[in-house]
Amino acid sequence: MDNRNEMTGATLFFRDKISVAILGATGCVGQKFVQMLSSHPWFDIKALCASERSVGKQYGDAVQWRHSTPLPEEIARLVVQPCQPVLPCSVVFSGLDSHVAGGIETTFAEQGSLVISNASNHRMDPYVPLVVGEVNPDHFALMDRQPFSSGRIVTNPNCSVTGLVLALKPLQERFGLQAVQVTTLQSLSGAGYPGVASLDVCDNVIPYIEGEEAKIEREPLKILGSFREEGIENADIAISAQCNRVAVSEGHLACVSVKFHTKPSIEELIEAWVTFRGEPQELQLPTAPFQPIHYFEQPYYPQPRLHRSLDKGMAVSIGHLRRCKVMDYKFTLLSHNTVRGAVGAALLNAELLLARGKIFW
Amino acid sequence: MDNRNEMTGATLFFRDKISVAILGATGCVGQKFVQMLSSHPWFDIKALCASERSVGKQYGDAVQWRHSTPLPEEIARLVVQPCQPVLPCSVVFSGLDSHVAGGIETTFAEQGSLVISNASNHRMDPYVPLVVGEVNPDHFALMDRQPFSSGRIVTNPNCSVTGLVLALKPLQERFGLQAVQVTTLQSLSGAGYPGVASLDVCDNVIPYIEGEEAKIEREPLKILGSFREEGIENADIAISAQCNRVAVSEGHLACVSVKFHTKPSIEELIEAWVTFRGEPQELQLPTAPFQPIHYFEQPYYPQPRLHRSLDKGMAVSIGHLRRCKVMDYKFTLLSHNTVRGAVGAALLNAELLLARGKIFW
Amino acid sequence: MDNRNEMTGATLFFRDKISVAILGATGCVGQKFVQMLSSHPWFDIKALCASERSVGKQYGDAVQWRHSTPLPEEIARLVVQPCQPVLPCSVVFSGLDSHVAGGIETTFAEQGSLVISNASNHRMDPYVPLVVGEVNPDHFALMDRQPFSSGRIVTNPNCSVTGLVLALKPLQERFGLQAVQVTTLQSLSGAGYPGVASLDVCDNVIPYIEGEEAKIEREPLKILGSFREEGIENADIAISAQCNRVAVSEGHLACVSVKFHTKPSIEELIEAWVTFRGEPQELQLPTAPFQPIHYFEQPYYPQPRLHRSLDKGMAVSIGHLRRCKVMDYKFTLLSHNTVRGAVGAALLNAELLLARGKIFW
Amino acid sequence: MDNRNEMTGATLFFRDKISVAILGATGCVGQKFVQMLSSHPWFDIKALCASERSVGKQYGDAVQWRHSTPLPEEIARLVVQPCQPVLPCSVVFSGLDSHVAGGIETTFAEQGSLVISNASNHRMDPYVPLVVGEVNPDHFALMDRQPFSSGRIVTNPNCSVTGLVLALKPLQERFGLQAVQVTTLQSLSGAGYPGVASLDVCDNVIPYIEGEEAKIEREPLKILGSFREEGIENADIAISAQCNRVAVSEGHLACVSVKFHTKPSIEELIEAWVTFRGEPQELQLPTAPFQPIHYFEQPYYPQPRLHRSLDKGMAVSIGHLRRCKVMDYKFTLLSHNTVRGAVGAALLNAELLLARGKIFW
Repeated sequence: MDNRNEMTGATLFFRDKISVAILGATGCVGQKFVQMLSSHPWFDIKALCASERSVGKQYGDAVQWRHSTPLPEEIARLVVQPCQPVLPCSVVFSGLDSHVAGGIETTFAEQGSLVISNASNHRMDPYVPLVVGEVNPDHFALMDRQPFSSGRIVTNPNCSVTGLVLALKPLQERFGLQAVQVTTLQSLSGAGYPGVASLDVCDNVIPYIEGEEAKIEREPLKILGSFREEGIENADIAISAQCNRVAVSEGHLACVSVKFHTKPSIEELIEAWVTFRGEPQELQLPTAPFQPIHYFEQPYYPQPRLHRSLDKGMAVSIGHLRRCKVMDYKFTLLSHNTVRGAVGAALLNAELLLARGKIFW
Repeated sequence: MDNRNEMTGATLFFRDKISVAILGATGCVGQKFVQMLSSHPWFDIKALCASERSVGKQYGDAVQWRHSTPLPEEIARLVVQPCQPVLPCSVVFSGLDSHVAGGIETTFAEQGSLVISNASNHRMDPYVPLVVGEVNPDHFALMDRQPFSSGRIVTNPNCSVTGLVLALKPLQERFGLQAVQVTTLQSLSGAGYPGVASLDVCDNVIPYIEGEEAKIEREPLKILGSFREEGIENADIAISAQCNRVAVSEGHLACVSVKFHTKPSIEELIEAWVTFRGEPQELQLPTAPFQPIHYFEQPYYPQPRLHRSLDKGMAVSIGHLRRCKVMDYKFTLLSHNTVRGAVGAALLNAELLLARGKIFW
Repeated sequence: MDNRNEMTGATLFFRDKISVAILGATGCVGQKFVQMLSSHPWFDIKALCASERSVGKQYGDAVQWRHSTPLPEEIARLVVQPCQPVLPCSVVFSGLDSHVAGGIETTFAEQGSLVISNASNHRMDPYVPLVVGEVNPDHFALMDRQPFSSGRIVTNPNCSVTGLVLALKPLQERFGLQAVQVTTLQSLSGAGYPGVASLDVCDNVIPYIEGEEAKIEREPLKILGSFREEGIENADIAISAQCNRVAVSEGHLACVSVKFHTKPSIEELIEAWVTFRGEPQELQLPTAPFQPIHYFEQPYYPQPRLHRSLDKGMAVSIGHLRRCKVMDYKFTLLSHNTVRGAVGAALLNAELLLARGKIFW
Repeated sequence: MDNRNEMTGATLFFRDKISVAILGATGCVGQKFVQMLSSHPWFDIKALCASERSVGKQYGDAVQWRHSTPLPEEIARLVVQPCQPVLPCSVVFSGLDSHVAGGIETTFAEQGSLVISNASNHRMDPYVPLVVGEVNPDHFALMDRQPFSSGRIVTNPNCSVTGLVLALKPLQERFGLQAVQVTTLQSLSGAGYPGVASLDVCDNVIPYIEGEEAKIEREPLKILGSFREEGIENADIAISAQCNRVAVSEGHLACVSVKFHTKPSIEELIEAWVTFRGEPQELQLPTAPFQPIHYFEQPYYPQPRLHRSLDKGMAVSIGHLRRCKVMDYKFTLLSHNTVRGAVGAALLNAELLLARGKIFW
């Protein structure tokens, strides 16, 4: 960790932290942004924005803090502002709900902000990068084509998609992917707060999450696609998803089966996963996991409660790789949905942009 | 219900109930046999057999009864016997664990008992019928080829398989099945008692059930196979299963995707399911559900807690049928694992054999 | 059950069922009223009333039915009406939320309806009977003093209180109660729907239920109080409650400790409980449990999932009676909160009033 | 943290870490000892002892590691030894089950080991200190009277008792305690592994934990008692406990009501708690929480999932203090049962003994 900071922190040594704002700061994703940014070595929370109901209150009074780490005093004292681009921050993290995020994020970008968004609204916009740090950082090049003068919008994918594309990327590169089937067992935190009613998951499973399957079938094609002159050329993979909500607090589990163009061996697949590294690892970014993908030999691993927090929740876990009688192979995949699948992915995007010189002090 | 009894009960009016024994009566499946047989119109529990530890005790003292319906007094007073074929019962229900079931069931059959077994040991034996009442009652013809003088062994499938073959049978008949992928979210009761440790499923999912995937990939091929002179010819369907244990007390949920020889429409599929009837319905057997398969229009249904007990737990529920980008269609399937998937399936087999004259008073 | 109906149903043989309306019919309690009344031998659902959002829709479309028994077709087709007393029903069951129930119920009573309410608003009104059928049916005499011409309001207590006063009544009668301490472990259904957020009870307990402790400390004093010329004289018992919400779907568990004026033996206490009968049992009312209180010898019983549905959810269960080093005795108490603690209690009140001739055809 | 180590670590600077052994190392408590000791600044795991089944295997193969932090490589390679005092360690931590702990611990003490035990067997022995670091470190003086030549046995209390006596100690000191009633909602990890069957807590509560109430009613009297020439004089407090098992992974919640000799105000009580400090805080021991008791103003706090890990699981949390109609006051109490209530308590005892010079290098 130390030498990581030494290297990437070279320029930071001479500069101050970057002031950032959080949009939707009282919500579920917003609180996670606050938690992860409050001790971030490069960013400094200067503004917290939320809806009318909270504006004018101190954040500590406006929020019902639901994290096991205490809310830092100095953050609790910040007065909540409206979601309007009159902030002293040029970098804005958006944890807004998708029913309001679209317009607000565009307004911020028009006024010159770099919007790092976890919302789904702009993900599929042709000139908006939809990036997972280790997978397709070259897609950031789309930013140059955005219609804003100085502002930009950058997005990360749906919480189930991040883990999936991390698992698929090294396979696609080496063996060529033809088809992917994925059945998810998703955690409650993915639905926000209050989210799922407790009566709906007590001694129960909800075999449906509105809009989720479409996202899982669509977003990976852009992320795993190729950057071209005319925009992203989607990957040519057939993806089918079935989504379930289970009584787990954090951590999305997925049962995945894959069909290849070139059939690899089990050893080649595991080797592809555990040796996989990306730009965040090369640059030793603060939020980057040391090893993005872990493979477990025990067939009953990974499990949400035991492995979701691996490498601070930024590593994904895979296990139980075996041949499939319908596709080629099948395996179990786990990722932390609010860290790796949401806020951590956004932070990694911001760190990448900063390291690449796309964010200026 | 009344006219059902009138018709099928015609002969019963003049005869006594049939005396039956339950093997493994103190275990999880055994208790369910006791519960469902204690009020059965055709069968009368005369003997309860269990391991050394319980032999000689009154059943009420030997068992830790874990059902919400009280244990009937007259059953509680029965003295537990060893699992040896010196019983006054020619019909024997086996709820034995598979590590002992094989030999004991064979011994009973050799001594002349008709063994109706829920255990996995003999399911794949070439001359042992593996039957789901509505699906393949013609396979009972295998009984005539068993090497026993008067005894016989009849089995029902794994708890996840029963619901699956019920859903697949009408599709196979009308449209021809090429491939099936199934990811299960199975309930705790499927593991018996004490079964799964609570720490393993609290805020967690176990993405592995030992031996389960092999059964789900193997047993349906026999059940959906064809009866031939030389035995059962397995169905030619590629089946792949991924199994998970979730924190649900009863009811196995499955996410299924299917590939057909002839592509049906969504309407044709639903029509095939809801109109499906089998011999148990024609004969109006006591344990038979009125309608074996229900289809729910709401995409978030069926759910274990709400629908597992439909038609006393003997009907399976399907929902969320939609096109699949990898296979042809995908849907959600629910069945009650200890009723439809185990004890109810065994009872239905016994009722079918009685109605067909294979059991004599 | 049969001879019960013969006796109490004597007059019913010559008469039609009584038409009733349900207020707040789409809510959690309202749905339970629909479920339990849809097969009631004396009452016939003629009107379903709810808020603006549902008015004009067919009930089947307006409601998100969350019960494991299917919604009857004829009820599903009823058009939802506003909560206004222009109904063709003189008996009205109220499952309204307390933030609107007060005024609406008063209006109905003013217009001549007999309001059988589960809401808390009028419970402590001096001339409103707060009745648990087996405990204080003599309090119905308060009805004669209500300020309405022909209408009346009758209430049943909070869901935690019903089970408690059933357990306390036989003790109070025989041994005199001085003080009661109760710590509850209450189920999710007590909070309605959507009620408690799943994230709040996943791997968690909420040690607080707003307003609940005050109700448990107040309502039993009225119910266990004495009917006097000038109204109810509260019982002189010190009651202290601590309330918790746990991840259980149905069934409120309570740890109770009691201090007596006259110290009974353990045998006398159990005897007092299991022999306890009330007017509902004498009259063999349709909803009355055969035996209101069951005692379990196993120290680990009763348990919510196993025993909440005893006698169709109308019997309460007690276990683990033992001496207390601070009070005199302590024990475990379980009751089904939405049946015995809410809708079943209201139905029993209506049946009692009908049997006593307070409801006329 | 740093200056803490500087101060107490003064002598450590010149010395090696102390070699320690763990008895029962593969069990639930044993694994927690391994986890917490593997990064301890003063102790070094040199021997892992377990039953026959594991002896001779590498620890990594013998154990089914169930913690979210990975098992360190160098520990995984240690070969498991039998529980016999031929170890190179004079300090031995015991995580043994109580059905074997008694004799083994005595043997180790007889052979000269200092046994720091979490087992219940010797807790009530007259000359064995039963110590919670902040509460009664003066009881360590009992060690001098033990019948062993150089060996000693030191114990910490039951997992529910540690949190309770921490909450009670400052109240006893300032206001005098007369009576305490406590109803616990205990987590699954308190029962070890596999412990509670998942079917027993799915949609359920078990209102009984064998032997637990007696421990909670007995152990605090010794801990809160006074050291005298002739041994410990028990505290004169009436304590009554009712214990429940709930579906929570970690963290015991308790509803406590207390009666005082001198009635304090609410403010005085809170002040007594939040200002409470003990010898572990004064000595800045590595495992000591900075503030042993936290008070939450929100009535719905503390909650197990949110607050059990406060100060690395070593701080206890209190909330919802209010007047009680039967006793004087009542409140909610939370403590981490396997950290503060077990392994952390044992480590704190070892650290205290080392700081007091009772452990020599």
